[in-house]
Amino acid sequence: MATVTSNVKKLPSDIEIARNAHLAPLTEVAAKVGIDESDLVPYGRHVAKVELEVIEKMADRPDAKYVVVTAITPTPLGEGKTTTAVGLAQGLARIGRKPVLALRQPSLGPVFGIKGGAAGGGYSQVVPMETLNLHLTGDFHAITAAHNLLAAMVANHLHFGNELGLDDIQWRRVMDMNDRSLRHIIEGCGAKTDGVTRQTGFDITAASEVMVIMALATSLADLRKRLGRIVVGFTTAKKPVTAEEIGAAGAMAALLKDALMPNLMQTLENTPAFIHTGPFGNIAIGNSSIIADRVGIKAGDILLTEAGFAADMGAERFFNVKCRAAGLTPQAAVLVATVRALKSHSGRYEVKAGKPLPEGMLQESPEDVEAGCENLVKHIQIIRDFGVQPVVAINAFPTDFDSEHDVIRRTAEKMGARVAVSTHVADGGEGAMELARTVVEACEDEVHFTPTYEFEDSLEEKITKIATKVYGADGVELSPAAAKSLKLYSDQGYGHLPVLIAKTQMSLSHDASLKGAPTGWTLPVREVRLAAGAGYVYAICGNMMTMPGLSKSPAAMRIDIDDEGNVQGLF
Amino acid sequence: MATVTSNVKKLPSDIEIARNAHLAPLTEVAAKVGIDESDLVPYGRHVAKVELEVIEKMADRPDAKYVVVTAITPTPLGEGKTTTAVGLAQGLARIGRKPVLALRQPSLGPVFGIKGGAAGGGYSQVVPMETLNLHLTGDFHAITAAHNLLAAMVANHLHFGNELGLDDIQWRRVMDMNDRSLRHIIEGCGAKTDGVTRQTGFDITAASEVMVIMALATSLADLRKRLGRIVVGFTTAKKPVTAEEIGAAGAMAALLKDALMPNLMQTLENTPAFIHTGPFGNIAIGNSSIIADRVGIKAGDILLTEAGFAADMGAERFFNVKCRAAGLTPQAAVLVATVRALKSHSGRYEVKAGKPLPEGMLQESPEDVEAGCENLVKHIQIIRDFGVQPVVAINAFPTDFDSEHDVIRRTAEKMGARVAVSTHVADGGEGAMELARTVVEACEDEVHFTPTYEFEDSLEEKITKIATKVYGADGVELSPAAAKSLKLYSDQGYGHLPVLIAKTQMSLSHDASLKGAPTGWTLPVREVRLAAGAGYVYAICGNMMTMPGLSKSPAAMRIDIDDEGNVQGLF
Repeated sequence: MATVTSNVKKLPSDIEIARNAHLAPLTEVAAKVGIDESDLVPYGRHVAKVELEVIEKMADRPDAKYVVVTAITPTPLGEGKTTTAVGLAQGLARIGRKPVLALRQPSLGPVFGIKGGAAGGGYSQVVPMETLNLHLTGDFHAITAAHNLLAAMVANHLHFGNELGLDDIQWRRVMDMNDRSLRHIIEGCGAKTDGVTRQTGFDITAASEVMVIMALATSLADLRKRLGRIVVGFTTAKKPVTAEEIGAAGAMAALLKDALMPNLMQTLENTPAFIHTGPFGNIAIGNSSIIADRVGIKAGDILLTEAGFAADMGAERFFNVKCRAAGLTPQAAVLVATVRALKSHSGRYEVKAGKPLPEGMLQESPEDVEAGCENLVKHIQIIRDFGVQPVVAINAFPTDFDSEHDVIRRTAEKMGARVAVSTHVADGGEGAMELARTVVEACEDEVHFTPTYEFEDSLEEKITKIATKVYGADGVELSPAAAKSLKLYSDQGYGHLPVLIAKTQMSLSHDASLKGAPTGWTLPVREVRLAAGAGYVYAICGNMMTMPGLSKSPAAMRIDIDDEGNVQGLF
Repeated sequence: MATVTSNVKKLPSDIEIARNAHLAPLTEVAAKVGIDESDLVPYGRHVAKVELEVIEKMADRPDAKYVVVTAITPTPLGEGKTTTAVGLAQGLARIGRKPVLALRQPSLGPVFGIKGGAAGGGYSQVVPMETLNLHLTGDFHAITAAHNLLAAMVANHLHFGNELGLDDIQWRRVMDMNDRSLRHIIEGCGAKTDGVTRQTGFDITAASEVMVIMALATSLADLRKRLGRIVVGFTTAKKPVTAEEIGAAGAMAALLKDALMPNLMQTLENTPAFIHTGPFGNIAIGNSSIIADRVGIKAGDILLTEAGFAADMGAERFFNVKCRAAGLTPQAAVLVATVRALKSHSGRYEVKAGKPLPEGMLQESPEDVEAGCENLVKHIQIIRDFGVQPVVAINAFPTDFDSEHDVIRRTAEKMGARVAVSTHVADGGEGAMELARTVVEACEDEVHFTPTYEFEDSLEEKITKIATKVYGADGVELSPAAAKSLKLYSDQGYGHLPVLIAKTQMSLSHDASLKGAPTGWTLPVREVRLAAGAGYVYAICGNMMTMPGLSKSPAAMRIDIDDEGNVQGLF
């Protein structure tokens, strides 16, 4: 039986496709969505920052439709949310719309670790990919510097007598690198003049609270305030000590002011793409920046923004935290589904990162897909509960079969959800035109945006509501330490904050091995922490890795420059 | 008696002057020295990187005169080498020349530590100073990332079994921050999966060997080779292990390729200024980049390049290391002298950083100046020994007296050296026109460039020649460890490398308290280290600080942004 991807063809490598791209001058790309050259600050030949003043300048324009791109519970290989977002943007442009894309910036850690680069794939990429993957405009470096300036000033405060009485210090350092040896360090190991000896460690920059602050700040003034509110630790009397009290918040803002301008790039088909901030998907917000969305919502007529991981994680935070902080109303959600992910949700196969797919998964088997479809059903329901309509986007692979796509289509339709197949990786925007038309249709739906909880709910209620209403848990089990922290944070006036739940992305539950749509389980909260500057409390369920390590043969070993100075080995 | 600065006036603050500057479009600034718009890569509105291809494009043009700006032994306050270089460039433009300026990029550490910013001063500044002081085009961040990628890969190599048999690891990590607590750390303190436990530490980025490699690389290909040659440590059999063997050099080059393009900015009077790299003045090379000079030498008709610290340090390395690595011949040296520095060399006053000058030093006293002049005489001699003629530049302060300048002038003239007073801080380029004319005159001198040593000399001979012929020591005393290292490096084939001597900049000797031109002393070499990628061996005399600390009230506490997003408190 024929596979659905009619034009099964041997695709050139991502980097070959990217190198052959015809990049348009960014002024032209910006002009497509009404951003004037005078509002662009060029950074290199193919990236420009957009002045924040455009937000005011464009205030009278109507808002674009705000569409989040999310996914079903993925395999460790990922199900192509980024490529779908890029392809869909290209497809929307092809049917005469003015799309704007908003994506997260990749972190250097994974670039040199496993992935060797991330910018979409095939004929749905953001270019130039070397620029996107290496430094871009230096925003991550600015965030690293601001984070570590605060750390240096905290250590300096201890060194000069600890006037504020800091006892329990929670502010670590960050580096945009996979470096397991820095997870746990002892600093100040020299003479007395070399600082106070204490245990601490490094996280990857994407896990920095400053990264989240950049993602959630609605203006430069808001950024400055959030930085001041960062709690670096607590006194013996459990009083929080802030970055403002340390005296670091102003200098941090000075380091970050240019980084707050979103970075404009383009897709292979010259569609405008904002690449801005890159907070981790587990302990951080996992969404790109509000500032980029605030610019994009006034620039185009459809704003596509990608949320990390699956709908229970990235989209939940998008709706409950980001939309409310931004004051923006979501219109629709694209729910990316793949045959391989649904087959894995059947529980019949185990997919491992860096390993080929199990042989059986490549056989035609609508039954396997059917057996995994309860995950899709649950994610459709999750999105609907926010009062938003999902569009199921079947991200087609050359190894898929029509019969398998039919199962997905029927499942979605049975739920009354829109659905479309997209072959954007092989065909670029042309392959996403059906999806584009379906999304445009969904943008006419009436929306009754309904967050999962109210800010007035207690912190514990908020956690419980996410666990039960979104994840499908029976309830929540707080460890004594978690319960104590929740009480402390409420007592200190942080009870009104939203909550994030840090858990695995590989299951709707906290247990990566539970596929499909698990029921009859309780969410165990090991620990609760405060991110007062970012403006949330986060509950940790399981071991969260905040500083990845390199593999035995990291991607960095394959990366080099050639005689012309071109980067080799990024893909 | 009247002070020499005829127009004693209350100067506006540096930042006020900088904010009122009329910046020219960079394309115009570049065009002044024949660099085409198509060779500029914009980074923000007021900085551009210059494509390295221009070096080949301009190969047929005559070389500009290559002039180094150096100084007598300074007080801890500095004697205004940067302001003089900037002012002189402006002065040269005013007398119809086409000057190009090459300066080092300031480090974030000092910006947030003591200084709060560095970009010249008064009416001789490089602008915009916020950009110059905060991130610029991200080159330092790229260097930090490349350095730490290698460190992560070394740690990763240990974690996965240490196949290469690394024993004595010399590669630390870097951060562009003053953070004393990171000088000595123990990494890998967690579980076995969290890396190998060992002592290490962080240096400031300016002290990174990668910074020196960037400063000394003559092309992208040369950069790649130097990165590969970095020795990260030794095996138990004392065999060096390189970055190439670790597999990191290619990825490091990919991180650094854009950073190798020099950054073009402008002075307050729109004179072109390259700001590129910023290696430490003690253990590193203390000079700005060869690449910037290679572009500048073909662009203008006089290239002014600043060398860190005094002539015994920065200029010695400029002549012995940088000129030879660059294949460029120096034409003249500007030797900056101040009344206050010469008064301090009388041994009658103690000048301390961050403290007001001793009251007595502000009284008219040609006798004090006279008493300190042997330092000036020695530095004139140092420069002459390289076969190059010095121009003594008296950097005038409003508190100077004519009689004091006369002493400096007479001393220089007695040596047959050219001399000029410059009031560039108060008067900009106009105040440096006399100096400019004098430098132009010196550029017609015949030069017999004579380095202090030959590369074929043994490492110990090289150290001895610098100590005796440049510093004026009677000889060198090697510690047993230093002697052992010298033998090791020679045996391993590094004997042909030049040497750097890391010592205090506050004296011609290794002892900061010895003012003037000390005689009858021996240089004690405590330790010798190898910087194989940078291409030198360095001898350490005394305690070299490679990671500064913050003061009790660091400059960062005064830095903030205002409502318009302008940075406050940088000066």
